[in-house]
Amino acid sequence: MTGLGFQLLATSGAARRGRLSTAHGTAETPAFMPVGTAATVKAMTADAVRSTGAEIVLGNTYHLMLRPGAERVERLGGLHKFMDWPGPILTDSGGFQVMSLAQLRDIDERGVRFQSHIDGAKEELTPERAMDIQRRLDADVTMVLDECTSWPIEAGPAAESMRRSMRWAERCKAAFVKRPGYGLFGIVQGSVYPELRAESAEALVKIGFDGYAIGGLAVGEGRDHMLTTVRQTASLLPADRPRYFMGIGRPEDIVASVALGIDMFDCVIPTRSGRTGQAFTRRGPINIRNARHAEDPRPIDQDCACPACRTYSRAYIHHLVRAEEILGLMLMSWHNVHYYQDLMRDIRASIEADGYEAFMARFAAEQARGDIAPV
Amino acid sequence: MTGLGFQLLATSGAARRGRLSTAHGTAETPAFMPVGTAATVKAMTADAVRSTGAEIVLGNTYHLMLRPGAERVERLGGLHKFMDWPGPILTDSGGFQVMSLAQLRDIDERGVRFQSHIDGAKEELTPERAMDIQRRLDADVTMVLDECTSWPIEAGPAAESMRRSMRWAERCKAAFVKRPGYGLFGIVQGSVYPELRAESAEALVKIGFDGYAIGGLAVGEGRDHMLTTVRQTASLLPADRPRYFMGIGRPEDIVASVALGIDMFDCVIPTRSGRTGQAFTRRGPINIRNARHAEDPRPIDQDCACPACRTYSRAYIHHLVRAEEILGLMLMSWHNVHYYQDLMRDIRASIEADGYEAFMARFAAEQARGDIAPV
Repeated sequence: MTGLGFQLLATSGAARRGRLSTAHGTAETPAFMPVGTAATVKAMTADAVRSTGAEIVLGNTYHLMLRPGAERVERLGGLHKFMDWPGPILTDSGGFQVMSLAQLRDIDERGVRFQSHIDGAKEELTPERAMDIQRRLDADVTMVLDECTSWPIEAGPAAESMRRSMRWAERCKAAFVKRPGYGLFGIVQGSVYPELRAESAEALVKIGFDGYAIGGLAVGEGRDHMLTTVRQTASLLPADRPRYFMGIGRPEDIVASVALGIDMFDCVIPTRSGRTGQAFTRRGPINIRNARHAEDPRPIDQDCACPACRTYSRAYIHHLVRAEEILGLMLMSWHNVHYYQDLMRDIRASIEADGYEAFMARFAAEQARGDIAPV
Repeated sequence: MTGLGFQLLATSGAARRGRLSTAHGTAETPAFMPVGTAATVKAMTADAVRSTGAEIVLGNTYHLMLRPGAERVERLGGLHKFMDWPGPILTDSGGFQVMSLAQLRDIDERGVRFQSHIDGAKEELTPERAMDIQRRLDADVTMVLDECTSWPIEAGPAAESMRRSMRWAERCKAAFVKRPGYGLFGIVQGSVYPELRAESAEALVKIGFDGYAIGGLAVGEGRDHMLTTVRQTASLLPADRPRYFMGIGRPEDIVASVALGIDMFDCVIPTRSGRTGQAFTRRGPINIRNARHAEDPRPIDQDCACPACRTYSRAYIHHLVRAEEILGLMLMSWHNVHYYQDLMRDIRASIEADGYEAFMARFAAEQARGDIAPV
């Protein structure tokens, strides 16, 4: 195998059922990657993450380069060993977090200089350094360094930024060390402007990548703009390569994006909103802090087989979250990550059966039922 | 079975190897009870607690009466079901925490009135209410309400407080509802004064309890005073009933107290100090935050079989704790509770082999070796 393998197993409309093959094993697609920012999916052991059915996780280059440092992770045998995740790992390039977290950012053709949000240390991220860091981390899927533009943005600045990201993509490709089972993804930019997205996609396909991501969305442009852009962009990408919509989303956004031909997703929503008390269920999200759960002996989701639902009542988890007990964060995160993996399993099965449209209708109807009535 | 069963299986000097039998199963003694303050051993699932070998856990009446409330726990089927702990549970009486946590305490013959540290609500705890709450929680082992005196304290006030606690003990006995497999423990008070301890023990034995606890120690009196008092008090207690030294302690304090005839322990040290970065090992405690662990690929304790030690390096846990990741708290707590249960297993085995004195010497020598050298 050279680079990453990607097998297209079935389709249902534009929805695709595939399999990503990496140096550390395979991941069935459409896949949702739990986010392991600082080499841990927050509040979960790696065993717990595996138990949900997740096959590939995401690590954040920005966080890991600052702490514990890419060189240290490399000396310790790479990210897989470090965090007990022998399966596939995708790392982002650090560009997005530099823009959202670091201080005193200074971006130019060379790259981006910034101060660490942890200790104020001066750091630099260039396309070449982003490749170097991700190689040291031993990421199966490496992402090119790009600039994720904010919203709103005019077409002019969006074009300038996108074109620089494309030049960076070329430098990333040149710097990326090819190894069997390891691959590099390009990232389409261009905000909501179709002609910019087309130009970006064309540039990336010309360079040639193992997969293609759609970046720069879910930054405030609204759901219609987002899905329209995904639809247009996905149609410009090679059918035989995986497509990754970065940083989304809510269950309904994932369901809608799969219908547009997306294969991979990542998002902090299941873990982050779990920590604030939001639980996803087959009847829509609930807030476990709500007083109506205080004496409810039923699980968060009676159709869920996660340990939180198999073992504990809403009343107990309500109590834990109200009391700010760590176990509350643990159980909420576990349930939500499990819910997302259940969703992906259902999505994959419905594509295999060429019934994705019916699945979408059923999903929407189920979510609209609303939470089970209080006891 | 009426009340609690206690079988003495072996002795080694004054050290005792026994078995406590309750309505929810047995616990081998000497036993260490992880503290599940608010119906959770902090940062651990009940499964994780079980995996350490713990057979009995402690719940705090004070915390549970305030949130979620004893009546609510009762309506939800009791504490065992609520927190997924089908095994034996001991609850304290709430007296200690009222004194250390609540506001505007007002104590008299009737009981203690206070304001909740959570919402300022006015509450009252009397001997009768303490029995009522623990019955509703469905505790296998109920503790009498007592006053844990602070340190330093003169003999006069210590005597007054102890005598009131003895009158409360009598009221607790009268209010306690006898059920097979459920039992009530008295608590010896009297600070460091031998004549007061003797008077207290005599009073309790006259009332008659299923077990006897030693309270009012480890409050600042120092290790010598503490162990001298335990030695004297234990010698006054019935040999056929379990003895529980409340609220300690560090591994060396447990080892020393077992030699004085103590059967049961509880302490927040393994979980609380785990959350601050202290890990217990067979070569003494280490602070995982220390920079020398930053690249150490070895486990916290190479002789430990807990999931943290089997799976993760010191370097990884160091990183997690430094980065304030929840998984760091989870793994440190898991390891420490596992270490304590390993210690209790070793203690029990050495008593069975009538080799407790040799065990104590070996334990002290091992702890004195100091941490393994850095790689």
